[in-house]
Amino acid sequence: MTTGETAIFKSQGFGQTMGIGEAPALVVVDFVVAFDDPKVFGGGNIHPAVEQTVALLAFFRERRLPIAFTRYVFAEDGSDGNLLTAKVPNLKILTEGNPLGHVVPELTPRAGELIVRKRNASAFFQTDFSSWLARHRVDTLVVTGAVTSGCVRATVVDALGYGYRPIVVTDCVGDRAIAPHDASLFDMGQKYADLYTRDQLIDALRTRQARAAE
Amino acid sequence: MTTGETAIFKSQGFGQTMGIGEAPALVVVDFVVAFDDPKVFGGGNIHPAVEQTVALLAFFRERRLPIAFTRYVFAEDGSDGNLLTAKVPNLKILTEGNPLGHVVPELTPRAGELIVRKRNASAFFQTDFSSWLARHRVDTLVVTGAVTSGCVRATVVDALGYGYRPIVVTDCVGDRAIAPHDASLFDMGQKYADLYTRDQLIDALRTRQARAAE
Amino acid sequence: MTTGETAIFKSQGFGQTMGIGEAPALVVVDFVVAFDDPKVFGGGNIHPAVEQTVALLAFFRERRLPIAFTRYVFAEDGSDGNLLTAKVPNLKILTEGNPLGHVVPELTPRAGELIVRKRNASAFFQTDFSSWLARHRVDTLVVTGAVTSGCVRATVVDALGYGYRPIVVTDCVGDRAIAPHDASLFDMGQKYADLYTRDQLIDALRTRQARAAE
Amino acid sequence: MTTGETAIFKSQGFGQTMGIGEAPALVVVDFVVAFDDPKVFGGGNIHPAVEQTVALLAFFRERRLPIAFTRYVFAEDGSDGNLLTAKVPNLKILTEGNPLGHVVPELTPRAGELIVRKRNASAFFQTDFSSWLARHRVDTLVVTGAVTSGCVRATVVDALGYGYRPIVVTDCVGDRAIAPHDASLFDMGQKYADLYTRDQLIDALRTRQARAAE
Repeated sequence: MTTGETAIFKSQGFGQTMGIGEAPALVVVDFVVAFDDPKVFGGGNIHPAVEQTVALLAFFRERRLPIAFTRYVFAEDGSDGNLLTAKVPNLKILTEGNPLGHVVPELTPRAGELIVRKRNASAFFQTDFSSWLARHRVDTLVVTGAVTSGCVRATVVDALGYGYRPIVVTDCVGDRAIAPHDASLFDMGQKYADLYTRDQLIDALRTRQARAAE
Repeated sequence: MTTGETAIFKSQGFGQTMGIGEAPALVVVDFVVAFDDPKVFGGGNIHPAVEQTVALLAFFRERRLPIAFTRYVFAEDGSDGNLLTAKVPNLKILTEGNPLGHVVPELTPRAGELIVRKRNASAFFQTDFSSWLARHRVDTLVVTGAVTSGCVRATVVDALGYGYRPIVVTDCVGDRAIAPHDASLFDMGQKYADLYTRDQLIDALRTRQARAAE
Repeated sequence: MTTGETAIFKSQGFGQTMGIGEAPALVVVDFVVAFDDPKVFGGGNIHPAVEQTVALLAFFRERRLPIAFTRYVFAEDGSDGNLLTAKVPNLKILTEGNPLGHVVPELTPRAGELIVRKRNASAFFQTDFSSWLARHRVDTLVVTGAVTSGCVRATVVDALGYGYRPIVVTDCVGDRAIAPHDASLFDMGQKYADLYTRDQLIDALRTRQARAAE
Repeated sequence: MTTGETAIFKSQGFGQTMGIGEAPALVVVDFVVAFDDPKVFGGGNIHPAVEQTVALLAFFRERRLPIAFTRYVFAEDGSDGNLLTAKVPNLKILTEGNPLGHVVPELTPRAGELIVRKRNASAFFQTDFSSWLARHRVDTLVVTGAVTSGCVRATVVDALGYGYRPIVVTDCVGDRAIAPHDASLFDMGQKYADLYTRDQLIDALRTRQARAAE
């Protein structure tokens, strides 16, 4: 983007900071085998983002904060195909039993962590994710996963609408191509989410916790 | 985007065509005075997109097809501020009575056309838009408006999920900066919508109508 | 209810008729083994309602109209328990594999008919049911199933909101006790749905079809 | 209901207690002039329920807990009529400016209290109510208002689904006829909500607060 182009967002008042709330949860969007494999739906900077997420997940586990994972799950018999699978038919391979649809081994979900099965981009769309967040009294949703310009972004837009402050962890989200990744990070930072690197976020959460303990 | 980057979308099976259904409706997203004015929320290619939309709106009116407009409407007293207005506080100027929030004069809504008042990016989010589409038995949603990387895109993603085939009219959508416009058109064409120029779409709808009349 | 009580609904203008639209679909709500068995969640007039539904289902199949079934499906490991299962814990036995949760043999779904898996009373709540109805351009939802005062009623209230005219087939819905059945039929007839017996509805649909064929 | 009929709910495990959570909010559903007037939409035990609610509202205000009110609001020009107004056309008189649609004087909302404008029975349906509850980190929704078998019940069913424990205050909800009132209280107590009288609830909330202060 040109300097003139970024200037217009500033002059129109976009990109304010919402800040971190009192009760963060972590969602790991579609870091499943298929999206970690360039021959299926992966590529670009997705794999490095998976690796960056390992320590962030450990941080949330240590503090016993709510953790959720999302997966596409379509029926074996194709009976729940929808308009998204009309546009991207290959997604229908992601059935309950197909190992390509399972969360990558580095991030395997544990008992007590939510798995959101979905048929559209957003983790919120026609799922029980918002109800789970409400029951856990979450107010801030830390978003990692793939792809930045797809399910991550759709989840962020919905989180904002449903009342959960979205934080995008810039090095824990990835896309199969860098241009869409960068463009969606820009859009989200201007309109829908606060952006942190993983280490900035861990520092910020540690500082808050230390202050709360004083 | 590099050639290598676009190639990966093709090899992974993205970007299929859904096709036009039997019952299209038109939505004009946020073509209000504020988004047509570079000093408020406008700029870039938004104004030319408004001008292109005039003939498309006339086409839908002639054929008595369902037409909807969207506007942001926030309360005068600020009582319905939400996370989006935390991120972009200036949006709160768009109240019921503020002329900046009214549809641009070139496209003034007529009696019988729906006005969707909304507080988030998507025309569908916490509004009665999907119910109106269902009551009209629409199956295809032709999307025009502003901005491509904001309310247009969020509306398109939700339309796909709610079961209405989204068609983005590439020269009837605009953004305050060209890079986000182009990036969102690319993403939508790969994952969420079929793309037509205005004239391609009018031709396609005319051809369908002629065939149906045979 | 006393005569004076029913009179007030009339004087206040409740209970108008919406009429049947152009494109009906049938939903069979929770007619699964557990709700047909008085020792689990059944009783009252549920079983007779199952038997009445057989011919109505055949009618929709002959005319190739859209047909959907709903089932509660909770995870084997209890991980998706929610507030409804806090209030009615036994519902958690209805897992994917438990035969108690399968549609009763008289009404076994066929290929091409939708199975809506849900975790709350309404067929619409956090499911893809409304999107399926939209894709099929349905405008009228014929509702059968169990129980009248629970999942049937919640589905009817949501259908009305989502823009699908609800028709309750009074002898094809049942409840484990007659008083709640009668009370919910009254409420729905006044506020949310048109009521038909099965034979009245079949006649009405036949008449419409004959007229359309003239 | 006969003794045998109530026994079946017990034997099947219905009617467990969810309990009060950590963060209650109060919603006053449709206690507007029209529903307090037997000549419009009122009657039965609605007015006494309004009077009972005065002290409960004061209790929530003293403790600075979140408070919301709901109103039906339809457009002056009738452009947002829906299926509910097809079934109950008189509701369309409840426009923004009609005093019949304003909250009753005894309960007038104050600055900082939410007004939910809605076009269907449930406070949650196509409104920003769930987002407001999420932003306030509410986990328990105390429900008062009118009518028990209509908007109160629909709000309760949705609250349960969205993850907010519903508490129905039995003497702060009313209906234009007693039979539907009683029937819906029974259904909600068995399946969707915990039931308290106003004084039981105030006692329970006081006890919790005293314990928390120890």
